[in-house]
Amino acid sequence: MINVISGGVTAPKGFKASGVSCGIKGNKSKDIALICSDDIAVVSGVFTTNTVKGHSLQLTMEHIKSGYARAVVINSGNANACVGKDGDKDAKEIAELTANLLNCQSENVLVGSTGVIGVPLNMPHVRSGIRTAASNLSEEGGRDAAQAIMTTDLLEKEIAVDIEIQGERVKIGAIAKGSGMIHPNMATMISIITTDVNISRGLLDKALKEVIPHTFNRVSVDGETSVCDMVLIFANGEAENSGIVNEDIEYRTFKSALEYVCINLSKLIAKDGEGATKLVEIGIEGASSEEDAYKAVCAIAKSPLVKTAIFGEDANWGRIITAAGYSGAEFDPNLIDISIGDLLVCRNGTALKFDESKAKDILKKDEVTIKVNLKKGTFSDRMWTCDFSYDYVKINGSYRS
Amino acid sequence: MINVISGGVTAPKGFKASGVSCGIKGNKSKDIALICSDDIAVVSGVFTTNTVKGHSLQLTMEHIKSGYARAVVINSGNANACVGKDGDKDAKEIAELTANLLNCQSENVLVGSTGVIGVPLNMPHVRSGIRTAASNLSEEGGRDAAQAIMTTDLLEKEIAVDIEIQGERVKIGAIAKGSGMIHPNMATMISIITTDVNISRGLLDKALKEVIPHTFNRVSVDGETSVCDMVLIFANGEAENSGIVNEDIEYRTFKSALEYVCINLSKLIAKDGEGATKLVEIGIEGASSEEDAYKAVCAIAKSPLVKTAIFGEDANWGRIITAAGYSGAEFDPNLIDISIGDLLVCRNGTALKFDESKAKDILKKDEVTIKVNLKKGTFSDRMWTCDFSYDYVKINGSYRS
Repeated sequence: MINVISGGVTAPKGFKASGVSCGIKGNKSKDIALICSDDIAVVSGVFTTNTVKGHSLQLTMEHIKSGYARAVVINSGNANACVGKDGDKDAKEIAELTANLLNCQSENVLVGSTGVIGVPLNMPHVRSGIRTAASNLSEEGGRDAAQAIMTTDLLEKEIAVDIEIQGERVKIGAIAKGSGMIHPNMATMISIITTDVNISRGLLDKALKEVIPHTFNRVSVDGETSVCDMVLIFANGEAENSGIVNEDIEYRTFKSALEYVCINLSKLIAKDGEGATKLVEIGIEGASSEEDAYKAVCAIAKSPLVKTAIFGEDANWGRIITAAGYSGAEFDPNLIDISIGDLLVCRNGTALKFDESKAKDILKKDEVTIKVNLKKGTFSDRMWTCDFSYDYVKINGSYRS
Repeated sequence: MINVISGGVTAPKGFKASGVSCGIKGNKSKDIALICSDDIAVVSGVFTTNTVKGHSLQLTMEHIKSGYARAVVINSGNANACVGKDGDKDAKEIAELTANLLNCQSENVLVGSTGVIGVPLNMPHVRSGIRTAASNLSEEGGRDAAQAIMTTDLLEKEIAVDIEIQGERVKIGAIAKGSGMIHPNMATMISIITTDVNISRGLLDKALKEVIPHTFNRVSVDGETSVCDMVLIFANGEAENSGIVNEDIEYRTFKSALEYVCINLSKLIAKDGEGATKLVEIGIEGASSEEDAYKAVCAIAKSPLVKTAIFGEDANWGRIITAAGYSGAEFDPNLIDISIGDLLVCRNGTALKFDESKAKDILKKDEVTIKVNLKKGTFSDRMWTCDFSYDYVKINGSYRS
C-alpha cells in the first residue's frame, strides 16, 4: 500500500532542505538548493552518459564513490561545464564551503549545476547563496528546493510516499527538474530522492539502478542528453526499520514505492517538456526482443513529425509507422497494428477507415496514448514524451538571452 | 571543367518530361511528373532503408532489377503506402498505363509516389493525369516535372551540367524534392537524374552508390527517414561518347560531375527544409575513425537544440559540444575546438571569450558553417541541415488537413 503524502524531499525523517535566490539567474528566481540529512546517509547515483561532463558532476561522481554523503547542493542557471580548470576549482569550493557550514567532510557533500554551458560561475553570488541556504535549512524546505533547481520548467516537481516496511512507516520523497534536453540516458534532468529507510548501500544502489531504466530513462522531450544530469538517492535509516539486507519482500516493497515515485516524476517531466501542451505515452507490444521494443518506442517518441502532428491534433499515424520503420527494429510491416487512444487506425500495416472526429476528440485531451503492436513476439516497452509546439522553438531560440 | 547549364532533367539529349495537375493535391498544383528517355536507358537506383516501404517503391525496386528502363512516373500528394493490396495493384496499373502510352514494356516503367501515408490513390484522377502527362512530354518539360514532384517544398529543385568525355559533350540533369522528413538514408526525398553519357550499367551503378553517401545521405532536416524515397539515374548513351567501361579518368570525370549535381541538390534540399530560414553546414575534423566522424556530425545536425539556437541566431555552442558528447563518437572533451563561421568559440573544450556581436553577424547570414575539430585523428565528415523554426511546427502540425 503506497500512500502519497506531502513534503517532497523533506517528508522522510531527518532531512532538511532550502531553496534561495543568489542572483545567478538574475531575475530573483531561486537558484540554490540545499538538501541535507541530519546524519550521514548511504547514497547512490546515476549520471549522464554524455562524454562531456560538467565540472560539478565530475566532482560528485568522485565523492559518491565512498557510498556515503550528508548533503547535496545544486545551483540552477549555470551548468558549470566547459569552463576549464576554474570549473573544477569552483565545484570543489562549493563542496568545501557547504561542508564547513554543515560541519562535515567536504567528501560528503555532492554538487550539482544545471543551466547554460561555457559561462564561469559567479562565485561571490554562489558563496552568499550557499550561506543563506544553509541558514534557511528546514523540515518544510522541500518545496523551496524543488523550485530552486528549475531552469525552463514551468512547475516544480515533487512527490512523497509512505509505506510500511518491517513494521515501521518508511517515507520516500523526491524532487526533479527537467524540461528540455531530455532523453535517455539522464538528459537535462536532475532528481534528488531522500528516504528514511534503513537499507544496505548495495541494495539501495541495486534498487535505483533497476528502477531508472523503466522510469527516468523512458522520458524523451527532444532526443537530447546533456552534460550535467543525475539522479541521487540518500537513505539515512531514521525510520528505524530493522534493515533491508536481502532481496526479500521488504526489498521489493521499497523498490515498488521507489518506482512509483520515479514514474510519477517522469510523467511530470514529460508533461512539462519545453512548450508541451500534452503528455504522450507511447507503448510498444509484440516486439521480438527487448532491444527491438526499445528501438521502436524510442524512434516514435523522438520523432519531430509524430510530435508536431500530436500538437496539431492530427491523427497522422503514417508518421508513427514510418518512425517504427526507420527505428532499426525488426518487424513485418504487414502485421503492425496502431491505436491512438482506444481507436485502432491501422491493422496489419493497412489503413483502417476511422472516425476522424473521434480521433480529434482523443487528441484534444491533455494525455494521449499511442499503442503499437508489432505482433512478432512478447516484448514490450513504454516511453513518455510530449508534443512539439511553437513554444519549444521560442524557448530554445533564445535560451541564453 | 563542369559547366552549369539550363534544362534540368531534359537538358541531356533524348529525354523528355512533363508535369501536370490531375487533382490529387486538390489545389491545382502539379502532381504528376513523367520523365522519359526516347530509347531504353541503363538505370540504377538507391532506395529508402525504412522497413516499411510504399507500394510504388516496392514495384520500382522490382522493375529496376533488369538494369534498364525508359521512364519514371511520379505522383505527389499521396505516398501510396500502407493501403494494402490495392496499393500494389494501383502501382502496377500506373506502370502498365504509362507503358501503353509510351509503347514499351510495363517492366521498363518505374513508379514513385510521395505524400500522405495510408490514403488510397484516387485512380480516376491518376489515370487522367498520366494520359495528360504523356501527351505533354517535351524537351522543355524539365521544370514542370520538378514542380510536379514537390510536396511541402517551396521551390522546385533542378540543375544541369555539361562536361566533356571522350571528345563529346555529355550532359547530366537532375530534379529533386524533399523538404521535411529528410535524413540519411533516403528520407522523404526523390531525385531523378538523367544523363546522355554512354556508360556500362555496372559503372553507372557504382558511380551513383559512391556519390550518394557524401551527398544526399548527408542531408538532415529533421532526423526522419520515410517510406517512399529514392534516387534514380537514367543513362541513355545519346551523347555518343565511345563508352565508359573502366574506372579510368573518364569515369572519374563523370563521377565528379555527378557529385557536383548531387551536392548542389543536397544543399537546395537542406536550404528549403520545412520552415528553414538558413542553410547550415556542419563539418567534423580530427575524428579517430570514419564512424566517429559520422556519429558526431549526425548528432549535431539532428539536434533540435542546436537548430533552434541557430534559428534564434544565438551562439549557444554548449549545445554543439553536448550533441557531440552524446553522439557516441569517442573523443577527449578537453581537446575539442568549435568554430561558428570563422569565429573560434571553444578551444580545448573550454569557453573562449568571443565577440557576441560578431557571432550574431555570422548567424544572421543565410548560410552558416559550424566546424568541430576533435583533434584525435584524421577523419572528417560534413552534413547539411537547416535551422528549426516556428514554421516547421506549423507545417507539420496540420499536414493532412
